[in-house]
Amino acid sequence: MTAPRTRIPVAILGATGAVGQTFVRRLTNHPWFEIAELAASERSAGKAYADACRWLEGEMPPDLADRRVVLCAPSAVRSPIVFSALDAAVAGDLEPAFACAGAIVLSNAKNFRMEPDVPLVIPEVNASHFALIERQRRERGWTGAIITNANCAATVAAIPLAALHETFGVRQVFLSTMQATSGAGYPGVASLDILGNVIPYIKEEEPKIERELPKMLGRVSNGELTLAPFTVSAHTNRVPVEHGHMVCMSVALDRRTTPEEARRVLAAWKGHEVVRGLPSAPECPLRLVDADDRPQPRRDVNSGRGMTVLVGRVREDPMFDLRLVALGHNTIRGAAGGSVLDAEVLVGSSAFDGTMNGR
Amino acid sequence: MTAPRTRIPVAILGATGAVGQTFVRRLTNHPWFEIAELAASERSAGKAYADACRWLEGEMPPDLADRRVVLCAPSAVRSPIVFSALDAAVAGDLEPAFACAGAIVLSNAKNFRMEPDVPLVIPEVNASHFALIERQRRERGWTGAIITNANCAATVAAIPLAALHETFGVRQVFLSTMQATSGAGYPGVASLDILGNVIPYIKEEEPKIERELPKMLGRVSNGELTLAPFTVSAHTNRVPVEHGHMVCMSVALDRRTTPEEARRVLAAWKGHEVVRGLPSAPECPLRLVDADDRPQPRRDVNSGRGMTVLVGRVREDPMFDLRLVALGHNTIRGAAGGSVLDAEVLVGSSAFDGTMNGR
Amino acid sequence: MTAPRTRIPVAILGATGAVGQTFVRRLTNHPWFEIAELAASERSAGKAYADACRWLEGEMPPDLADRRVVLCAPSAVRSPIVFSALDAAVAGDLEPAFACAGAIVLSNAKNFRMEPDVPLVIPEVNASHFALIERQRRERGWTGAIITNANCAATVAAIPLAALHETFGVRQVFLSTMQATSGAGYPGVASLDILGNVIPYIKEEEPKIERELPKMLGRVSNGELTLAPFTVSAHTNRVPVEHGHMVCMSVALDRRTTPEEARRVLAAWKGHEVVRGLPSAPECPLRLVDADDRPQPRRDVNSGRGMTVLVGRVREDPMFDLRLVALGHNTIRGAAGGSVLDAEVLVGSSAFDGTMNGR
Amino acid sequence: MTAPRTRIPVAILGATGAVGQTFVRRLTNHPWFEIAELAASERSAGKAYADACRWLEGEMPPDLADRRVVLCAPSAVRSPIVFSALDAAVAGDLEPAFACAGAIVLSNAKNFRMEPDVPLVIPEVNASHFALIERQRRERGWTGAIITNANCAATVAAIPLAALHETFGVRQVFLSTMQATSGAGYPGVASLDILGNVIPYIKEEEPKIERELPKMLGRVSNGELTLAPFTVSAHTNRVPVEHGHMVCMSVALDRRTTPEEARRVLAAWKGHEVVRGLPSAPECPLRLVDADDRPQPRRDVNSGRGMTVLVGRVREDPMFDLRLVALGHNTIRGAAGGSVLDAEVLVGSSAFDGTMNGR
Repeated sequence: MTAPRTRIPVAILGATGAVGQTFVRRLTNHPWFEIAELAASERSAGKAYADACRWLEGEMPPDLADRRVVLCAPSAVRSPIVFSALDAAVAGDLEPAFACAGAIVLSNAKNFRMEPDVPLVIPEVNASHFALIERQRRERGWTGAIITNANCAATVAAIPLAALHETFGVRQVFLSTMQATSGAGYPGVASLDILGNVIPYIKEEEPKIERELPKMLGRVSNGELTLAPFTVSAHTNRVPVEHGHMVCMSVALDRRTTPEEARRVLAAWKGHEVVRGLPSAPECPLRLVDADDRPQPRRDVNSGRGMTVLVGRVREDPMFDLRLVALGHNTIRGAAGGSVLDAEVLVGSSAFDGTMNGR
Repeated sequence: MTAPRTRIPVAILGATGAVGQTFVRRLTNHPWFEIAELAASERSAGKAYADACRWLEGEMPPDLADRRVVLCAPSAVRSPIVFSALDAAVAGDLEPAFACAGAIVLSNAKNFRMEPDVPLVIPEVNASHFALIERQRRERGWTGAIITNANCAATVAAIPLAALHETFGVRQVFLSTMQATSGAGYPGVASLDILGNVIPYIKEEEPKIERELPKMLGRVSNGELTLAPFTVSAHTNRVPVEHGHMVCMSVALDRRTTPEEARRVLAAWKGHEVVRGLPSAPECPLRLVDADDRPQPRRDVNSGRGMTVLVGRVREDPMFDLRLVALGHNTIRGAAGGSVLDAEVLVGSSAFDGTMNGR
Repeated sequence: MTAPRTRIPVAILGATGAVGQTFVRRLTNHPWFEIAELAASERSAGKAYADACRWLEGEMPPDLADRRVVLCAPSAVRSPIVFSALDAAVAGDLEPAFACAGAIVLSNAKNFRMEPDVPLVIPEVNASHFALIERQRRERGWTGAIITNANCAATVAAIPLAALHETFGVRQVFLSTMQATSGAGYPGVASLDILGNVIPYIKEEEPKIERELPKMLGRVSNGELTLAPFTVSAHTNRVPVEHGHMVCMSVALDRRTTPEEARRVLAAWKGHEVVRGLPSAPECPLRLVDADDRPQPRRDVNSGRGMTVLVGRVREDPMFDLRLVALGHNTIRGAAGGSVLDAEVLVGSSAFDGTMNGR
Repeated sequence: MTAPRTRIPVAILGATGAVGQTFVRRLTNHPWFEIAELAASERSAGKAYADACRWLEGEMPPDLADRRVVLCAPSAVRSPIVFSALDAAVAGDLEPAFACAGAIVLSNAKNFRMEPDVPLVIPEVNASHFALIERQRRERGWTGAIITNANCAATVAAIPLAALHETFGVRQVFLSTMQATSGAGYPGVASLDILGNVIPYIKEEEPKIERELPKMLGRVSNGELTLAPFTVSAHTNRVPVEHGHMVCMSVALDRRTTPEEARRVLAAWKGHEVVRGLPSAPECPLRLVDADDRPQPRRDVNSGRGMTVLVGRVREDPMFDLRLVALGHNTIRGAAGGSVLDAEVLVGSSAFDGTMNGR
């Protein structure tokens, strides 16, 4: 990893929404990247950023308040790296247009996650999947590329499962989530729906988790991805929490283990070395907590500046091999922070150099 | 079922706590029972009820405000039926003392639930287990008896599982709960621990659920209980909800089925006929809800005056046969209301006549 | 008061929204009224009610689920009494159209509240203001009429202030509110805005409270309304509560009093006798609570089926005469329930007979 | 202000409670102070800190986990500066004992706040009150001293009132608070009391606010304190918020002003220069926010690392001169952070040198 000599201009697509704002927070004062363009739909384009968006957390970076929002179109955006916080409804058309025009698109939308030539990446887990970019460019004739983030709850589950999978082989996973309201964007969940309540349903969430985990933990070789050979059953729930998705998991393994051994494996896991020293990489991508009643979203969600997934209550399961609970920050590790880390990995790699030339 | 000719005097043990207060609410204006005695520890005995307890919901029944609290001891309590809201720390000594003295003890404590001669009852599910009373009296030499309620989360799971077990045979259950703070009593969970938060741990809760479900769904024959032959894996969580425990379940069955057939079975299930027409029996012990995002605790918990368990999202499971979510009122169906229904079943039965004579 | 011989058909305008749904709940099984028509905008007209609205509390009355929603226009609605849950944006045109066409319009919108010929009524407080209907009809040439409800927070304050005003004369009022999210309708307040938070601002709320209180407590004589001679300063806040507006008040009086005397006056106040025995009238429109820490919204809001305002902590004020806190149900007493009570008062009065003929 | 050459050892009295923990967080890595002693009651003394306390926020500083808790007695504590998070029940005896033994005691208890010879200080507001220490030592014969913090809600109100008082003269204040649950310590407010609820009462809170504000804004001259000549009427409420007390205020002034002028005064106010450059002093002790719906506790409470009070909605009042809303962090600015700032002011002053010699 080498830091770029000058800060690279980047654009944020969908910059006015909740995930777009999280991108703004993660990229403000970033040592490698500079927010060059804030892009949004026609409704916002041309307005000052402060007028176009209702800022949700802390204070808007003062230097961006007066920045003109540009139209979210390849013709209007010049940055070689674009972070996409676009809704699925428009990402399907816009993201390929940007990739075709030569941009590296770091996407949080669901549209392309399951395409066989699109990396679905958590760098610590499956940095090798970046190799799919080559195939993607070849087959689609793009000079840029689309790289996707997983669903936010799938991301939280993937990190401890990766640690277990590497050592023991995961065979089956039952999981049940309790997800923060920020996962639904803004305005998102109405307060009358969630105050003092639980909603045992999140639209289309369960199939995403069930599909994305085997892809992320799969292997890429010669441009071909082989899914990890395990099945997932997911229950998803919305709870009155601001940030932080909790995932209770029961895991069946190929090789028997004990909770003690599993704890050692989880505590020692560092993930792929490609992220070492990157600006957004946390000291530990995975942290094992000891207290019986942790992790908890309000108390632990900001661990590692929101990039560390916490795992606790590693214990025996009456049917499978292990039970545990994981927590991660859904809009940071599970969305904007994850994409920024992806981009950091790409910078300096051959994939990125090509793209810069393409613009 | 015949209504008694005069209202039967009953006592509430531990009447000042949260569950004790729920007993008071359920028994006020009860057509068969009359609150004759409010019993509590030495600290409260002798005080007016209004002075001894911090009333938590609605208004204290005015005629009880001045009632003297009596000491929670067989010598001080005359009622033939006693509802016990005692903590486990004292129930172990006190409940047998009452049973020995001839009282029918309806217990919410964990102490005797797993004893082979003690019924662990939800009448709609396993009214036949009341037959263990005879063995209990014979072996222990009591003229009264102890009848127990299950753990509140186990109760919510047991009702839909009973419906499925009777038709399809349950083989394996993964479940993950989201439990209301009222399940921890008062003052119970500190607001700083649960506001905008989830606690992925409830002390001793998981083993209770895992043990109690096979007992409740087991069979009693000739005074011997055979556990139902299935395994349960439980994850338990506390969420910022006032009342209502939610249980997400994945269920493996002996006989394959479809979600449609399972829904028909669940919708048609009425439970044991012994409860028909009893004052506390809801119209339906189990109600199937159609909307994708229901049941929800704040909106649905009072269904059937808190005695109906709701079940929704009955769908296929990628590994087991079915997935679903259940909701029940933890302090009513899962505690006080369940005990009152137990008592209603017993009144008029041979078990109860004996007890009255014994006092 | 005489009950009508047959149930009177009524319409609900804006029947699909949050207040419209509260009307449906209050009018289902009403002894005098029958929901004949559910009216809404073009987007909903023609759909089944169950398809046109997202039902928020409990279960939709089953007989209404299939009812066709009609267009909210005088030409499409036949009922002589219409309950309006319309937004201010459309109420300004639609409510006069209905009144002109002969309907008695019970409005919850702000548009006509401050018109000098429009009653702004809480029957227990100012039933005499119904006399303005005559002037309204004369001046506007309507055969129907518009009768308005006050702002929901103003209603909660008005009831205890009326009791004090009648006896002591109110001179000045400082008040600060803590208002439930249901006051903002559905979807209304986003959960990300209010979970674990307070919003010290409700758009346009403070001037409404400050203007409406002197009108409600004013006098009508010969068709002329004289405002009550006091000033109000209001601070309004949104808090994470489902139902129930709390109002802290410091009150300066014309005649000095003591907290003890004020408590006696508040406890004895019954309001205008015109409501005695009406179906929606609570036993007491105002209830004095003794406990230091009451009233509380979650625990007390449903007092008197949501129609009783509770008042507590009546104590000396270092500057004014009295301090106290009041609580009322914002969507029942402060909206739908209040309108239904207004309609009950009108039924049988000369104002209503005329209207029926007018259709 | 000069930084001390070596870090000064300090003790925390009541180190295991909620405020004690906030002291630990504020003093960890403090450039001037070093946590030398964690003191608590007999129940905790001798235990490791990690065993003696239930850590509430983030992670306990690792180097303190094994630290032995010492008994909270002058004989067992050697540090010249002691931060007291003691309950009023024990502070009355212990704090004087420490002061008598030569320690500078920075107290958060209510016991000595209103003593005429005890400074009740917010340094930006009334640093001149430190002069009372001399009188206190003379009259009580102490070599140390007690310096007190105000009530947490009074602190939030005092800062904007000080700005207004200096320029316009405050004559009367109506205020109504919405206070976070962390103000009640841990376990403090039960979740069943506050989830989805408001409690319109905080024991003994209103008289504290009403008394402490005139003292803080008073003048000290020749060791005599003259109260500021204004009256305060306070309503206090508990709301389901973790951190941050909100105060709605209506303020009557000696000199008329406009909201615009008041905003300029508030925006320009820097407070006493004695705090400039101190480690805990925020860039601004007072920040004026523009958005109509701010400040909000969840979004703004950590402004200035919890040491900045925010003020918004400065507008006309129908009766008094101004209305506004203020927000401050109750356990930081209103408790531990305020005491640490007091100590920073004292270090290097003559008051402190004496104390060091006294030990």
